[in-house]
Amino acid sequence: MNKLVLLRHGESEWNKQNRFTGWTDVDLTEEGIREARHAGEILNKYGYTFDVAFTSLLKRAIRTLWITLHEMNLDWIPVYKTWRLNERHYGALQGLNKEKTAEKYGKEQVYKWRRYVKVRPPALNRDDKRYPGFEPKYKNLDVSDIPLTENLDDTEKRVLEFWYKSIAPTIKSGKKVIISAHGNTLRALVKYLDDIPDNGIVNLNIPTGIPIVYELDDNLKAIKHYFLGEEDILTHNDIPLNITKGEQVR
Amino acid sequence: MNKLVLLRHGESEWNKQNRFTGWTDVDLTEEGIREARHAGEILNKYGYTFDVAFTSLLKRAIRTLWITLHEMNLDWIPVYKTWRLNERHYGALQGLNKEKTAEKYGKEQVYKWRRYVKVRPPALNRDDKRYPGFEPKYKNLDVSDIPLTENLDDTEKRVLEFWYKSIAPTIKSGKKVIISAHGNTLRALVKYLDDIPDNGIVNLNIPTGIPIVYELDDNLKAIKHYFLGEEDILTHNDIPLNITKGEQVR
Repeated sequence: MNKLVLLRHGESEWNKQNRFTGWTDVDLTEEGIREARHAGEILNKYGYTFDVAFTSLLKRAIRTLWITLHEMNLDWIPVYKTWRLNERHYGALQGLNKEKTAEKYGKEQVYKWRRYVKVRPPALNRDDKRYPGFEPKYKNLDVSDIPLTENLDDTEKRVLEFWYKSIAPTIKSGKKVIISAHGNTLRALVKYLDDIPDNGIVNLNIPTGIPIVYELDDNLKAIKHYFLGEEDILTHNDIPLNITKGEQVR
Repeated sequence: MNKLVLLRHGESEWNKQNRFTGWTDVDLTEEGIREARHAGEILNKYGYTFDVAFTSLLKRAIRTLWITLHEMNLDWIPVYKTWRLNERHYGALQGLNKEKTAEKYGKEQVYKWRRYVKVRPPALNRDDKRYPGFEPKYKNLDVSDIPLTENLDDTEKRVLEFWYKSIAPTIKSGKKVIISAHGNTLRALVKYLDDIPDNGIVNLNIPTGIPIVYELDDNLKAIKHYFLGEEDILTHNDIPLNITKGEQVR
């Protein structure tokens, strides 16, 4: 039986400001740093350890990982960073306030952009200063890989490419893996691991800073999953992910 | 012309307590964290950037790197960690107070242990709790690679193996490299890059937290080197490393 731990980054500056973030490389807040430290404490408490870590190219996920690993005395393990674990690209919405965007375009439109699997937000132009191709960290990507906007399917596709190519073989080799990433990239993994249909994932929210443990069979499909938390907050048992509209993850 | 930046970790808890550290994995002090942040500020000020970083398996070097990279908005670059860049192993001296050791064995003996190229401190036994083989981070090493003690030659040998195998090809490929490491591993590199004989390196001290820039020719030998610092402290020019007994590095 293989265990995999998923960790969503702690609060970022734009979470706090309620802005669409996507690939914008905003930092953790003090609260986000505290959440990351707490994730490490919880993992220590339950005796977890890791051989390898995967994360995105965005500092809110990377620092969450660093802080968690430091708390666990695991600063030294290999950390692989990839754009394929980056948050979903939010196109021209990046930087906009979510509430103001809802006032302008209507709540329903914003809901579709955020939650509909096939709907893409308005695309960036390649001359927009927010175009990822201008950033050194993406300079080695094929232009065809650099998103101008993404729907949830697009994000899922690139996440799973990386899963099959790098993460799955690492887990199958017997290594203990932690993935520090983002709401939508972790949703894509959860959807895959738990075989959730498109309409079952719409309102699945991954909590920040709480380690989620997946126990996986030999085919790396979920046997069960659970959150790790303080016993008085979350039991160390199989509890469903936070579903806001009634769908159960399993 | 290739540029390489060397960075010695900031103050550690045992630097402060004046204890032999070696492979003991002690953390940075608050001052060490401040030094690392300052190194990043200085590198920013002079417009440096990096494509790849190398460091040891010891958290004082890893965290110095992380903090420096974060300051530079380079959290995302690949970081390769290797035991071959670990500090010199100090054998059975590890953990002892330097002053008390001098009282017990004499200042001359301690000086020989610290500075003579061929002299090894007393070796650890394999059942000593300080034996690196007990630590998860060294579990994949050949037993023959796990030191029980090292002289400066031993340290230099393993550092240069890694230099030839990994760092030199990376620099030759045109990538901008930073190495965050330790007093004795950086001395070994400086000795190699500047073609310093054994007797010329004895009293060479690498300052902590100050980026040292090496400009290298096509064979990766030093054309010149200089510290990066505030203009009112250090000029942005070729100045010698801090030699305490009169030898000049170049």
